[in-house]
Formats: sequence, structure tokens, C-alpha cells
Amino acid sequence: VLNERHGRIKERAMAQESKPALGWAARDASGLLSPYSFSRRVQKEDDVTIRVLFCGICHTDLHVAKNEWGNAMYPIVPGHEIVGVVTGVGRGVRGFKAGDRVGVGSFVGSCRACESCVKGYENNCPALLLTCNGVDCDGATTQGGFADVLVVNQDYVLRVPEGLPPAGAAPLLCAGVTGYSPMVQYGLNAPGMLLGVVGLGGLGHMAVKFGKAFGMTVTVISSSPRKRAEAVERLGADNFLVRHDAEEMKAAAGTMDGIIDTVSAGHQLLPLLELLKPMGQMVLVGVPTEPMVLPASAIVTGGKRLAGSGVGSVRDCQAMLDFAGEHGIAADVEVVKMEYVNTAMERLERNDVRYRFVIDVAGSIGCAAV
Amino acid sequence: VLNERHGRIKERAMAQESKPALGWAARDASGLLSPYSFSRRVQKEDDVTIRVLFCGICHTDLHVAKNEWGNAMYPIVPGHEIVGVVTGVGRGVRGFKAGDRVGVGSFVGSCRACESCVKGYENNCPALLLTCNGVDCDGATTQGGFADVLVVNQDYVLRVPEGLPPAGAAPLLCAGVTGYSPMVQYGLNAPGMLLGVVGLGGLGHMAVKFGKAFGMTVTVISSSPRKRAEAVERLGADNFLVRHDAEEMKAAAGTMDGIIDTVSAGHQLLPLLELLKPMGQMVLVGVPTEPMVLPASAIVTGGKRLAGSGVGSVRDCQAMLDFAGEHGIAADVEVVKMEYVNTAMERLERNDVRYRFVIDVAGSIGCAAV
Repeated sequence: VLNERHGRIKERAMAQESKPALGWAARDASGLLSPYSFSRRVQKEDDVTIRVLFCGICHTDLHVAKNEWGNAMYPIVPGHEIVGVVTGVGRGVRGFKAGDRVGVGSFVGSCRACESCVKGYENNCPALLLTCNGVDCDGATTQGGFADVLVVNQDYVLRVPEGLPPAGAAPLLCAGVTGYSPMVQYGLNAPGMLLGVVGLGGLGHMAVKFGKAFGMTVTVISSSPRKRAEAVERLGADNFLVRHDAEEMKAAAGTMDGIIDTVSAGHQLLPLLELLKPMGQMVLVGVPTEPMVLPASAIVTGGKRLAGSGVGSVRDCQAMLDFAGEHGIAADVEVVKMEYVNTAMERLERNDVRYRFVIDVAGSIGCAAV
Repeated sequence: VLNERHGRIKERAMAQESKPALGWAARDASGLLSPYSFSRRVQKEDDVTIRVLFCGICHTDLHVAKNEWGNAMYPIVPGHEIVGVVTGVGRGVRGFKAGDRVGVGSFVGSCRACESCVKGYENNCPALLLTCNGVDCDGATTQGGFADVLVVNQDYVLRVPEGLPPAGAAPLLCAGVTGYSPMVQYGLNAPGMLLGVVGLGGLGHMAVKFGKAFGMTVTVISSSPRKRAEAVERLGADNFLVRHDAEEMKAAAGTMDGIIDTVSAGHQLLPLLELLKPMGQMVLVGVPTEPMVLPASAIVTGGKRLAGSGVGSVRDCQAMLDFAGEHGIAADVEVVKMEYVNTAMERLERNDVRYRFVIDVAGSIGCAAV
């Protein structure tokens, strides 16, 4: 009886502390989003509570909302390029206080015990807890940043430099770190190096900006000749190659130290690998669904390397944000209200955005969490 | 007239100094070898003249002799796993003297000016001069080690530790360095690491020996279950996986720091990449002719890398030989006379050798160069 009573008290206390949240969720494979009321977990000792200001829309949100990967747990509140303001912290939180400008990226937890976690590359943890459509250790489904409030363990919260525009900073949390992390990890960040960036979408345009900030000569490689002007004039790329122009590609063969390949549609690896110098490295950050074709001679000759990379560690992400703050790097964004999200998702699907949609969450949903 | 006379004198002098050589050459795409008399170039100031003792037979010799790569310049004297004794040196030679035990590998020249050469990775030089079937700067076709004598620029001559058996040391010059070089270059040589070696031929058995000498736990991955005993008992591998045994492969998933893939027949990359830990690296040192299939997710998930590597630099090769000398590492060889070479080539073609044929050149052809 005593236990029962205690249980009831605890339940009531928890209910009182839990955060009501208002977001927009997909309910089925149509991927259509609509308003959704739910609760965030009770702020634990090492949790940070965040009022969401802006949240970018990444292709992954599209895949997940439409269950294209077959693992959707509806309702799903997408969003993992989140910038917000701290509204509360648990007693054990160090380094964050109310009022701080913070960010949350594509994951909010990891096992902390595997080799990847111990080495500080928790982004490769097999038990990585994704920011949305993940299963937390208490069994709850995680919900993302298309919502007014968020509760996240302090170790997965990033500091966002105050000097950056918060809307333009949001895509740094995924698109930004995804290009930045392999550049740093594989030494493709030395002044004077020649870097190729394949694809000029959300990821590609960030990679160009980081490449230029590192002092590299940056060549954009795109399938659309019409992107030449914007690559060079708007983003400051040094060169531009049309991927299907065999002569242009041949003239650039053997010139690049590294290539960041952001294309997630199926494409040929060989013409890209031929652009690399001996011992050059290419990094795939997009994931085409069809298998790619790799002639072994394309990497054995010249001792080349082909890596894959997904987002980046918390440490890399913080370093990237600090670097972005120092160099004034933010994404080129189109800020939209939450009511526009379904149209934005449609436009994203046909690549009709320069270069990232960012939802003005606080300006659309209000400030329920404050 | 003076010039003409000078020219004739010079010609005569060169003819006097040039080395008559006796080798075995392929004359057409049958690849059949037979005795062949030719001349080595005049020993230049920075050249080393070598009496060949032993020469290994590599798969590449087979490809070249049969014109399988379409670039054969007959007659071709194959052989690029050469151990011999110095019989003479030019006036500019430092570091070698008559009587020294030396080796020559798969290349005998490079441009010395490109980025790869300058950085000491001349094995990736686009103008690499191969030991046989290459075109020297004077227009001459290079001829390999299936011959009694060799004249090589000092910078491409290796010191072979006296403690190593000369026949067993010969395959180190190609098969040995091909496995050793990427292990060192990519940090796959730390004690305690888990290394996979795919394929147990000439290259694979050397990679196992180096892996063990580095203090790693070595797993052989083979398509032939019957190789289990020899991998473990004869070569000291710690584990053995049958490549087509899905259960065995699955049980080992995510355990390996690195994999050296020596297979040059077409095969699946995905099941091998799944053996790697997050951030693990796989190196292709064999070159299947058909393009391979690479699902991008196999390397993006877990941030894995796939490299290609061909032989190794002179510096790596010397380090490998010194390491082999310290650890008593030599190839397991079947020594044959030159007269047996055509049979040996046939047996090599059907992988009927444990693990490398080595020709006793000095014991077959004699010592014309002394």
C-alpha cells in the first residue's frame, strides 16, 4: 500500500514536471505534417531544456517522414538542425545556463561504452540515438526539432556562437558538420590544397564555404551547367566542372587532393576518382540507394582512398561551430513559417531551394516552453 | 667529320662496356618462355650492376607475358622479385659495393619531379618505370629478372639483410612490400589490432606473416575451407573465416580494425566491409578486372575507408626488408630451375603453389655477368 501510494505521488510529480510540447508531425507515409501535441520527458539531472528558435529541413527528414527507409514510427516530428535558447538545466549540467544560444544535431545519445564512443567518435556508435524516430533507453520514441521545446542530455548539446545568425546556423548542425568533419579528419583542410565538391545542395554549398575558409582552392563538380554562375559568383568557388563534360573532366584529371561527394542520387565514381592526385581521397557523404560501381584499378593505381562519413562527432560539431563563428560561416537559407512546411518538403524533393529551408519555429508555434 | 669520328669511338666504347645478358623471354601472347640473348645498358655513373641469384614469379609476370593487359612489347623477359649480388658500381654510387646482397622490385625508375616522387611515394609516380616491359628514358624496353644480369640506378636498389634466405627473400620485393606498405601507411600495424587478410596466395601469406610480426591478431578470410589448417597451423593465423559462410562472417561482423584484400578475381566487397569496426579500413591490393560493387551505405555507416595500394615506395620497401630481417620473415617458396618456368607459370595460373615460385636463376643460367 505504501509502495502504491509512493508510486502515485511519483507519477503525479513526474506529470507535473513533464514539458508539454507542440510540434508538427507526419502521421503516415504521405509524409504530410500537421500540428501535434505531445510531451517531452521530465528534465533529468543532466538534461538541458531548449526553446527551439529555428530548425532546418534536411533530406533525411523527407526520407523518414515518408517512411522511405521502412523504419518510421508514426507520429514523427522531424527536424535535427536545431538552434534554440536554453530555458532550464538540470542540477548536474555544467557549461549551459538559461539564455544560452545552443544547437542540437542529428543525434541526442550514444552508448558511451563502445570503441567509437570511448574514442570520441560517437557518431559511429552502433547504438546512436537519433534526434527523431529513435528509441530512447526508456523506450520512448524521440521527436525532433519541428516543435517548440526540446529536452536533451547536456553531452549532445552544442554551443552556437552568438555572432552567427540563428536561422543560418541551424543547417550547420547537420549539413555543415557532415562536410566539415571528414575534411578535418582526413586532412583535407590545408591551405593551398585543391578540393572538389560534388553536388551543390545543402551539404555541397556548406562544403564549398568551409573549403574556402580553410584556404583551399575549391572546384564545384555538378551535373547542372546552370549552377556555374552561382557556384563561382555567389559561393566563391574557384572552378566549376560539369560532371558529364568528358573534356572538362579530363583536363582536370589528377589535380585534386580531395573530393567531398554530397550526391545522394546514383552516379559514376570512376570519373570523380580520376580527378584525384595520387594518394588523393574522396569522401562519400551522400548515400545513393543503388550500389555504386567501383573499378579496383581506379583506387589501386595511384594509391587512392574512398571513405564514407556520416555527420560528425559532438567534438567535431563544436569545433565546426566555433570555426564557423570565427569565419562568419552560415548556410544560405530560405526561412519559412511552420505552416509552409509541407510545401517546403515538396520543393526540397525537387531540389527547388537555395540551399536550405529553415523553419522559424519560435515565430510559428509560439513560446509554449518558456 | 670530327663529330662522326667521335660518335664512332663512343659507340665502340659503349659496345665494349655494355653487358651481354642471357635470359628467358616470352615472344608472343602464348606467354611461353625460351632462352634469349640480349644486352643490358652500359653501367652509368649512378648504376649498380647485379648478378641475379633468385627471381620470384608474380601473377603480373603471367599477365604481361601473355599480353593480357594489351601492352606487351615482345620479346619480354619477366621478373621483378629479384635478389642478387652486386658485381659492379658506377663512380657516383654510394651505399653499394661489389659483393653486397641486394634486391630489385617492380620498378627501376620514376620521374623524380612529380608530387608523389618528391614526397617519397614514387610508386605512385605516373611515369613509373617498370622493371620489365617498361620504356626507359633512352627508349629502351626494360627487361626483368629472369636473366643473369641486371643494371639498375642505385636509387631503386634495395639492401637485402644477409640473414634472410635469398630465395625466400625474393618475393618480399613485390608480394611482401605490397602487403606491408599499406599496413604501415594506414596504421594497420599496431599490436593488439585485429587484421583480416583476404586470400591466401603469394600476397596473402606475406600479409599474414607481417601482421603476426606486428603483434596483431590475424584472421584469414578465404573461399577455400581446405586452407583453414595451413592458415592456422603453418602460417600462424589466429582465426579463419570461409568467405561464403554467412554465419561465420556474421559472427565476425564489426570486429576488424583493418583488412588487406589480396584477391584479384572478382568478389563481393560488402561482406568484407561488414567485418570492419566503425572507422575501419580495407585496402585492395589485388585488381579484379571486372568493376566491383560498392553500396555507399557500407562505408558511410560507421565511417569506413576503402583504399587501393600498389607495391610500395623504395623507402617502404627498404623498411620492410629491414623489418623482415629483424623478424626472420621470408616467403614460403618452391624453388625451381629456369627450365621449369613454363610449367611453373601454368601451375601459378591455377593457383597450384605454396606460396610462390622462385627461380634459381644463377643456378640455371650461370654466371655470365661475373
